[in-house]
Amino acid sequence: MSTKGLLVILSGPSGSGKDTVLDCVHKRDIPIQRSVSMTTRAKRDGEIDGVDYYFVTKEYFEKQIKDKNMLESALYSSNYYGTPKGPIDRWLAENKTVVLKIEVQGAEKIKKIYPDSVSIFIMPPSMQILEKRLRGRDTDSEESIRMRMDAALGEMQCAEKYDYVVFNDVLEDTVDDICAIIKAEKFKSSRMKKSVREVIKNA
Amino acid sequence: MSTKGLLVILSGPSGSGKDTVLDCVHKRDIPIQRSVSMTTRAKRDGEIDGVDYYFVTKEYFEKQIKDKNMLESALYSSNYYGTPKGPIDRWLAENKTVVLKIEVQGAEKIKKIYPDSVSIFIMPPSMQILEKRLRGRDTDSEESIRMRMDAALGEMQCAEKYDYVVFNDVLEDTVDDICAIIKAEKFKSSRMKKSVREVIKNA
Repeated sequence: MSTKGLLVILSGPSGSGKDTVLDCVHKRDIPIQRSVSMTTRAKRDGEIDGVDYYFVTKEYFEKQIKDKNMLESALYSSNYYGTPKGPIDRWLAENKTVVLKIEVQGAEKIKKIYPDSVSIFIMPPSMQILEKRLRGRDTDSEESIRMRMDAALGEMQCAEKYDYVVFNDVLEDTVDDICAIIKAEKFKSSRMKKSVREVIKNA
Repeated sequence: MSTKGLLVILSGPSGSGKDTVLDCVHKRDIPIQRSVSMTTRAKRDGEIDGVDYYFVTKEYFEKQIKDKNMLESALYSSNYYGTPKGPIDRWLAENKTVVLKIEVQGAEKIKKIYPDSVSIFIMPPSMQILEKRLRGRDTDSEESIRMRMDAALGEMQCAEKYDYVVFNDVLEDTVDDICAIIKAEKFKSSRMKKSVREVIKNA
């Protein structure tokens, strides 16, 4: 599917800092539209419907899957999580830069549906730093940290499949790097054909 | 041929402003090494050997062609012009970003020799603005301007073969765009493999 806007797929292990990076990119002068996931889990205090997630019933979610309105979905602890197609297509048609934060399996599926999307993998500078970041959160048990570290290693094996890999060492540098990638992608010649032909036609 | 540094191929019609853009990129904090052409034409006042051109004899130039030391070369008004391979390979081995300003035929040849180079085509915003810029130089005859306009149209037909196309409307924006492309290209996953594997290996 060819799109008008730019779809950016962002992945990275838990602790890679992708959420913070995305928050900072959002504050820069490159306007991005963050994709919102849909879930059947209960809304937590402080969460806003349509911002943190689209909170829906199980019946509604299953209807969306059946009607092929979900780009991808998965069941975790009896709750559905997934990416609705409608809003993304609408934003792309409006020529927006849509950023979709997603884990590696989902990323692969979405890259197939939108081949001219751009995928970025956020890497921690080292496993030692990743562990330090995960421990710094102070919310996870020892077992949970081990599980996250193992999962990170698995995800990092997929990094080379992405279009770009950015190491998140110094936050502001990482934000600069992501912004440069988004800016540069818009000048890919495949995206500039129409403008080039316009100049030639009007010669 | 796989390279360590980044080779940037820059083309654009006469009047597209690529020289000015390149001068400005050179002054930014992205360090670039500009490739220097070799010629057999006489050195003009103010020109510096090794900066403006490598000024050599006809015999020396022909020996370089014979020894396959030239990436490309052409004969204009009985003078040779070409791109020597040695300095470029040395700079790339030193991990430098080498920018090579070259016309479209030469660009195609060099892209084949260095497939992981990145090619950028600089477009004028319109043929009307191109003509205005060419006339503004006040050095070219009417016939010369016509010839340059025709040549520009021919070159622009090749723009889509480049990796990126950048319209040079507002100079500072164009410089930002080129810098973003150079920055982004360094994060291509094909260039990051070694760093990713290093992290995984040391886990």
